[in-house]
Amino acid sequence: MNQADALAELARLVPAEVLSTDADIVESYRHDQSRWGDAGTPLCVARPKSKDEVESVVRWAAKHRIPIVPRGAGSGLSGGASAIAGCVVLSLERMTRIVEIQRDAMYAVVEPGVLNGQLKAATKELGLWYPPDPASFEFSTLGGNVATNAGGLCCVKYGVTVDYVLGLEVVLADGSRIRTGGRTRKNVAGYDLTRLFVGSEGTLGVVTEITLRLRPAPPPAQTLVATFDSLAAAGQAVAHIVKSCDPSLLEIMDQASIRAVEAHQPMDLDTSAAAMLFARSDAPKGAEPRRIREACEAAGATTVFVTEEEWEGDMFLHARRLAFPALEKLGATLVDDVAVPVHLLTEMIRRIERVARETGARVATVGHAGDGNLHPLVLYDAKDPADEARAQKAFRTIMMEAIALGGTITGEHGVGTLKKGFLPLQLGEESLAVQRRVKETFDPLGIMNPGKVI
Amino acid sequence: MNQADALAELARLVPAEVLSTDADIVESYRHDQSRWGDAGTPLCVARPKSKDEVESVVRWAAKHRIPIVPRGAGSGLSGGASAIAGCVVLSLERMTRIVEIQRDAMYAVVEPGVLNGQLKAATKELGLWYPPDPASFEFSTLGGNVATNAGGLCCVKYGVTVDYVLGLEVVLADGSRIRTGGRTRKNVAGYDLTRLFVGSEGTLGVVTEITLRLRPAPPPAQTLVATFDSLAAAGQAVAHIVKSCDPSLLEIMDQASIRAVEAHQPMDLDTSAAAMLFARSDAPKGAEPRRIREACEAAGATTVFVTEEEWEGDMFLHARRLAFPALEKLGATLVDDVAVPVHLLTEMIRRIERVARETGARVATVGHAGDGNLHPLVLYDAKDPADEARAQKAFRTIMMEAIALGGTITGEHGVGTLKKGFLPLQLGEESLAVQRRVKETFDPLGIMNPGKVI
Ligand SMILES: Cc1cc2nc3c(=O)[nH]c(=O)nc-3n(C[C@H](O)[C@H](O)[C@H](O)COP(=O)(O)OP(=O)(O)OC[C@H]3O[C@@H](n4cnc5c(N)ncnc54)[C@H](O)[C@@H]3O)c2cc1C
Ligand SMILES: Cc1cc2nc3c(=O)[nH]c(=O)nc-3n(C[C@H](O)[C@H](O)[C@H](O)COP(=O)(O)OP(=O)(O)OC[C@H]3O[C@@H](n4cnc5c(N)ncnc54)[C@H](O)[C@@H]3O)c2cc1C
Repeated sequence: MNQADALAELARLVPAEVLSTDADIVESYRHDQSRWGDAGTPLCVARPKSKDEVESVVRWAAKHRIPIVPRGAGSGLSGGASAIAGCVVLSLERMTRIVEIQRDAMYAVVEPGVLNGQLKAATKELGLWYPPDPASFEFSTLGGNVATNAGGLCCVKYGVTVDYVLGLEVVLADGSRIRTGGRTRKNVAGYDLTRLFVGSEGTLGVVTEITLRLRPAPPPAQTLVATFDSLAAAGQAVAHIVKSCDPSLLEIMDQASIRAVEAHQPMDLDTSAAAMLFARSDAPKGAEPRRIREACEAAGATTVFVTEEEWEGDMFLHARRLAFPALEKLGATLVDDVAVPVHLLTEMIRRIERVARETGARVATVGHAGDGNLHPLVLYDAKDPADEARAQKAFRTIMMEAIALGGTITGEHGVGTLKKGFLPLQLGEESLAVQRRVKETFDPLGIMNPGKVI
Repeated sequence: MNQADALAELARLVPAEVLSTDADIVESYRHDQSRWGDAGTPLCVARPKSKDEVESVVRWAAKHRIPIVPRGAGSGLSGGASAIAGCVVLSLERMTRIVEIQRDAMYAVVEPGVLNGQLKAATKELGLWYPPDPASFEFSTLGGNVATNAGGLCCVKYGVTVDYVLGLEVVLADGSRIRTGGRTRKNVAGYDLTRLFVGSEGTLGVVTEITLRLRPAPPPAQTLVATFDSLAAAGQAVAHIVKSCDPSLLEIMDQASIRAVEAHQPMDLDTSAAAMLFARSDAPKGAEPRRIREACEAAGATTVFVTEEEWEGDMFLHARRLAFPALEKLGATLVDDVAVPVHLLTEMIRRIERVARETGARVATVGHAGDGNLHPLVLYDAKDPADEARAQKAFRTIMMEAIALGGTITGEHGVGTLKKGFLPLQLGEESLAVQRRVKETFDPLGIMNPGKVI
C-alpha cells in the first residue's frame, strides 16, 4: 500500500479532527526545543482525544510499519519529540482530562496531555501538592514529564518525576494496552515496568494515563542567597549544606551567568563573584536556615542574605530564573545537562570553564547544585559556522568530562537524538546491548520513536 | 554430561571452599523463611567470594542448563530463595565488603552479602544514615533487600529500598556482567535497568555490587501512641495525619495483635481497644507532634501519649515489635503482605476481620499504616490439616479483597512462589504477558530462579 492509501485508511479509522496533513500544521510538529538535531517531515499529525483513538493510530502504524513519534508539548531539549521522515506525530496534547484526584490517599489520575502546571493548580485548591517542577512546568505535559523523567528545582528534597509515578496505562507498539503499577504507595507485584517506562522517551510505548502520588501542601520556606569569590568555597558550602540539612532548593550560578543576568537586568549582583548559591529551607522555623547560613559563612561566603518572606525569597530567586532568558539574548544557546556526584560539583564547573577557555566557546553554567546536576549553556552565533563548531566541540568535551568524573551525560533532559552518540560511552557496550534487547522486546518492529535514545 | 561430571567441572572452575555438596549443608539452603512453598533439593551450594567466581558459576550453570537460585540470608517470606530440584543455590553471603563510603556525596558501594545492619552501623559512624529498615535488618543482606525492594518502618517518610539504589552491577544469565545507573542522584541516560532489577527477586540476574544513596543522620524523633475504640476512628486519624504531617513512622495494630502481645508480655495495653496507632515525628521540635496528637484526638482516640525521649519512644514501640514474636507463640504463622490506597486502610482491616470470621481462621493484623501496607498474620496449627486449610482459604481471600480494593497482593515481601498463582489476577493477562517477555529477554534459557514470580 502506498502512503496515500495508508493515510486514507487512517482517515477512516479516526474522526476527521484527529488527523492532519496540512503542510503548515505538519511543519509546526517537526521540531521540539532542541538544537542540532535533524528532523524529518512527518507524513501526518494525529491528535487523538481518547485512548481508543491512540490505539487505532498505533495499530494502523504497526500494520504499515510507519514510525510513531509520541509528543507532548514539544518542549523537550534533546530531540526526543522531533519528527522522523514519513512518521506519524502522535500528539497527546488533547488528552487533557484530570480523571480523579483522591484527596485522602493523595493521588491523581490524569491523561498525558494535562500540563504540569494544571495539575499543580488543581491539587493546590485541595490543599495538596504535585512537587516535580521543571522550569517548563507551565507548558510541558505530564506525559512528556513522565517520558523524560523530568526534574526541577525542588527535586533535591522532593525527588524527580519517577518518584511520583504510581502507575501507568501504556499503549504498546502493537496497539495493545496495558496497565502497570497501581494506586498504592508500595507495590512489588512483578517487575517494575512503571519505572522502566518512565524516562524511556516514547521509545517503548505511548503513555495514555498516569497515576501520580501527591503530597500535602508544602510548608512556607525561608530563602537564602550567598556569593562566593571562589568556586571551591561555593562547592564546600554545597557539600556542607547537603550533609547537614535537607534544603528544598539548592541552586548555583557561575560567574558567566551572573554577569549575563546583571547585563540583562541590572539588580546589583556582584559581578566579581565566582559563584552564587540559592537555597530554600521549608523545615519548620528553626535551626535549618541558620545552619545553611553558617555553612555558607564557614566556607567563606562574601555575602549572605536570608529572608522569611515568600515574596522576598522569590525576588532572590529571580536572578536564577533570569539566567536562561538573559543568556538566550546573547546568541543561540544549547542547554546541556550533565550530572556528577555532588562532591565533584565545583570540580565539574572548573572543568567546564577550562573547556570554554580551551575551545574558545562561550559557556555559562547554572545548576541544581544539591543534586550535582549542571546546565552549562553553550552560546554561539548560529550564522557563524566556526563559532558553532567551537560550541559543538565544547558540548562534546563537557560530556566527556562528566563521564570522566563518574557522572552522567544527562541528569534530566534525556538522550533523544542529541546525545545518542554519547550513550555508548556512558553505558559501555555490554550494558547498551541489554538496553537494545529491552527496546526490541517492547518494539520488535522498531516503529516506536525509532532512532531515539539507542 | 551427567550431573556428577557437571559438578566435577564446577569443582575445577572455582576454589574448593566455594562449592559444597555436603547433604547437611545443602539441606540448610533449601528453604527461606516462607511457608507453604515447595522446595526441591539442590545439586549443590556455591558460596563465591568474588564477582569472578559468581561469573564462573553462572557460566557453568548456563552451559549445563542448571537452574540458579540466588540467595542472600534466606530471610525472605515468599519463597524467592527456596531451592529448586537440581539447582545450584548461589549464596552471596560471603561477599561482605563495604567497598566505599563517600562521605561528601553520601553514597556507599557494597557487595551484596553486606547485612543491612552492617551498613547502618558503618554509615552511622560517619554521621550518615542508610534509611531502609526492614524488621529483618540485622540479618538480611542488602542484595536480598535490593532483590525484594524491601520496605520497613521508616518508608512512610523516607522511602523503600529502590529509592536508595543509584546503581548496580549484575551478572546476567549468560554470565556477562553489566553496570547500570551510576553514582549520581539524577540520571536519565538510557532505560532505567537499575529499577527494573530492584524487586526482580533474582529472576533477571545476580546482583554483585550495589551503589546506595545515603542521607545525613536522622534527627531525634518524638513518639506517640494512641488507642481507638473503633477501626473507623483509627482510620480517620491515619488519613488526617498523612494529609497534614510527614510522620517518620506510622504503624497500626488491630485488636487481635494487641491481645496477643498483652498475653505474651503484660504491659497494661488496653485489650478492649479496636486498634493502636504508633507514630513518630522527626521534624524539628515544633508543631508536628502536636498536630499528630490533635488528629488522633479529633478522630476520637481513647488515649494518647507523646514523648520526646528516645528511650521512652522505643518502649512505646516495643508493643509493635513484640507483635510477631507474640503471635508466633500461638502457632504456625503465615505473614501476609497486602497494600491498599491509604484511605481504604481500615476498610481493608475490616474485611480481613470478616474473612477471619467467615473462614474460621485466626488472623491478627499489624501494618505500616501510613503506606497502606498491612501484614495480616494467619495463625494455624501445622499439625491440623483442617486448620491449615482454613488458614490457606483466609490467606487467599485476603489477597482477593486487596485486589478488589484497588490494592496489591504484595507491598514489600515479593511474589516468590507463595503468591505466583495470584499475580495474574493482580496484573491481568496482557500485562503479565509483557512481564514474561521481559523475563525471556534477560534469561532466554530460563535458568535464573525459574518458576519464581512469573
Ligand atoms: C524553557 C525550558 C525549561 C525547561 N526546564 C526543564 C527542567 O527544569 N527540568 C527538566 O527535566 N526539563 C526541562 N525542560 C525540558 C522539557 O520541558 C521536559 O523534558 C519536559 O518533560 C518535556 O515535556 P513535553 O510535554 O514538552 O514533551 P515533549 O518534548 O513533547 O516530548 C519529550 C519526550 O517524551 C516523549 N513523550 C511525550 N509524551 C509522551 C507520551 N504520552 N507517551 C510516551 N512518550 C511521550 C516524546 O516522544 C519525547 O521523547 C525545559 C524545557 C524548556 C524549553
Ligand atoms: C522476622 C522477619 C522480619 C521481616 N521484616 C521485613 C520487613 O519489615 N520488610 C520487608 O520488606 N521484608 C521483611 N522480611 C522479609 C525479608 O527479610 C526481606 O525480603 C529481605 O529483603 C530478604 O533478604 P535476604 O538477604 O534474606 O534475601 P533472601 O531471602 O535470601 O532472598 C530474597 C530474594 O532475593 C533474591 N536474591 C537474594 N540475593 C540476591 C542477589 N545478590 N542477587 C539477585 N537476587 C538475590 C533471592 O533469589 C530471593 O528471590 C522479614 C523477614 C523476617 C524473617
